[in-house]
Amino acid sequence: MKLTVMQENLSRALSTVSRVASSRSSLPILSNVLLRTEGNRLFIAATNLDIAISETVGAKIDKAGSITVPARLMQDFISSLPAGKLELEATDNKLKITAERFDSTINGISADDFPVMPTIEGGSELEFATAEFKQTLQQVLFAASTDEARPVLTGVYVFSSEDGKNLYIAATDSYRLAEKTLKKPSKNISLLIPAHSLQELLRAIKEDTETIKITFDEQQARFKISDVEIVTRLVDGKYPDYKKLLPKSYETTASLSRQSLTEITKVSSLFAREAAGSITLVIDEDKNQLSISSIASQVGENTATAQAEVNGSATITMNSRYILDALQAFNGENIQINVNGKLDPCILTDPKDNSYLHVIMPVKS
Amino acid sequence: MKLTVMQENLSRALSTVSRVASSRSSLPILSNVLLRTEGNRLFIAATNLDIAISETVGAKIDKAGSITVPARLMQDFISSLPAGKLELEATDNKLKITAERFDSTINGISADDFPVMPTIEGGSELEFATAEFKQTLQQVLFAASTDEARPVLTGVYVFSSEDGKNLYIAATDSYRLAEKTLKKPSKNISLLIPAHSLQELLRAIKEDTETIKITFDEQQARFKISDVEIVTRLVDGKYPDYKKLLPKSYETTASLSRQSLTEITKVSSLFAREAAGSITLVIDEDKNQLSISSIASQVGENTATAQAEVNGSATITMNSRYILDALQAFNGENIQINVNGKLDPCILTDPKDNSYLHVIMPVKS
Repeated sequence: MKLTVMQENLSRALSTVSRVASSRSSLPILSNVLLRTEGNRLFIAATNLDIAISETVGAKIDKAGSITVPARLMQDFISSLPAGKLELEATDNKLKITAERFDSTINGISADDFPVMPTIEGGSELEFATAEFKQTLQQVLFAASTDEARPVLTGVYVFSSEDGKNLYIAATDSYRLAEKTLKKPSKNISLLIPAHSLQELLRAIKEDTETIKITFDEQQARFKISDVEIVTRLVDGKYPDYKKLLPKSYETTASLSRQSLTEITKVSSLFAREAAGSITLVIDEDKNQLSISSIASQVGENTATAQAEVNGSATITMNSRYILDALQAFNGENIQINVNGKLDPCILTDPKDNSYLHVIMPVKS
Repeated sequence: MKLTVMQENLSRALSTVSRVASSRSSLPILSNVLLRTEGNRLFIAATNLDIAISETVGAKIDKAGSITVPARLMQDFISSLPAGKLELEATDNKLKITAERFDSTINGISADDFPVMPTIEGGSELEFATAEFKQTLQQVLFAASTDEARPVLTGVYVFSSEDGKNLYIAATDSYRLAEKTLKKPSKNISLLIPAHSLQELLRAIKEDTETIKITFDEQQARFKISDVEIVTRLVDGKYPDYKKLLPKSYETTASLSRQSLTEITKVSSLFAREAAGSITLVIDEDKNQLSISSIASQVGENTATAQAEVNGSATITMNSRYILDALQAFNGENIQINVNGKLDPCILTDPKDNSYLHVIMPVKS
């Protein structure tokens, strides 16, 4: 392999793909990044066997070929070089990199040993506008579980409505649930995508990409964003039928400024450290206010109040971190809190936009 | 104690003083911050017994008094509140804080148990322009040792020249040394100030303060920066007479762009991880260049070159981190590297400014 590539392009591609290469893997080659010529382009890829990320960049190819080199060293090294042309030449599992004032050799491993990327033959397709998909991921991803004991909850569930008019994108860790509804005609879609693969996707999204294309079969999904391709295995298993747990009506609702609620929740959470973050919301119809008290503890106690438009009265205890996470996922000026019983799920909605809802399970108090 | 204070002022003072309060201390009250009325001001202080930081802020005092409360909770809480008036009232070792929509009580400890700040009776004085003193600290502090096994090296040595015309400020960890010379007439000054106290001082310096006043006796030094006061114990012991180790002349010198040297040192350091960061500088008079090679290792090897104005030739091996730290401490466009023998101290200077010099001890190679 012998080629010339621009430092800017190679550095960008390495920073996109290298994150999945792990030096903690038992297979040393998984900490490497693959460089391979493809026609008049350079293909750069890394994988941890669950997910593979690749990007192709323009290059002047003098001699076709391939090599793998340690991802972290390669990324740090290339990003430290000044912008401009770099010459790459691979011989005997060594990669020689030459720039104007730099002359380096990085020891590698033959590309023959690099795990073959999974391929998707046939498969179905979905296409999203980048901005909409990015926002959806930001609203949903954090609610997925990180606990491998229940693998289905580490996934994000993408599925079509029965009438085929909507596409739902949901995640839950069983303490809270986030659901986005996209008005996107779709049929018989039921995909369970690992949340950490979608995190990588989110990082790889560039502002100037207009659409994201997903191709998938039973086992895998492939995302295409400009020159970047991410292939991920899907999570195996049946997602809980959470829809039937969502209440159809609410006994108590309070609508208030999202910023005010964020402020009083943050302040109250400081006093709730000993109580694992539990705070009690009191919705008062007579006073038209929502107030938050932290449970009296060794450090002290706190009550904070905000004006609200209230229907009905209720008292409910929740984890302050879940409330703060949820409030960040909304964009509107106001937020509506919908409550039934003290131990029933509490639903957060935007009074002006019903495409996103967030469910928080209360804590016994 | 009962008073009204502006949230902005209290929050700023808490963030200045709270850092020295440690929750890891064996004395619980040392994790607290002291609040005490002083005339028509509120005095806020924290200490770890080695260093005490205090600030006074304007307040409307209704009833004199004092209390101590957990520093971290108090700081986090006050900084989360909206700007505006806060009412503080202390009774029975509880501090009640009331703002427009917030009502809180923080449990405290009586101020009677708070360690009394050391006082300096009489003592000598020094005054610095803030900008100059800040720059000096930034150039010198990082070279001090953090190893408590040799306490004198954890201090920054401030001393007057024999002719009384200059003041030297120096720090060393025995592998490198930084020395700043201030044209400041001074006599018989010999102060050894803990580097970590000066770190706190650096953090407390506000851009709008014009002068910093130091008052000191044999045991302590007190810094006054506007409304902030820092009192620190001094380090006990005799500082090494490093001046006699500084070479009077150099066999080889190389002068080059500071940015180029930073760039090639950074790149070379990536290949030197296995060698604990050691890189070899080759100064070549014939080629008028300085090149850096990392020692060939398992990961590969690298040579990087920069143009330089060279007198004499030399080869010297040093720790790349020390070179990078030193390069950051200079401000000029060019840097001069001055070398004698392979194992003699290497001196970095600014060809246009002799007020700062940096010494790095070479590594055997």
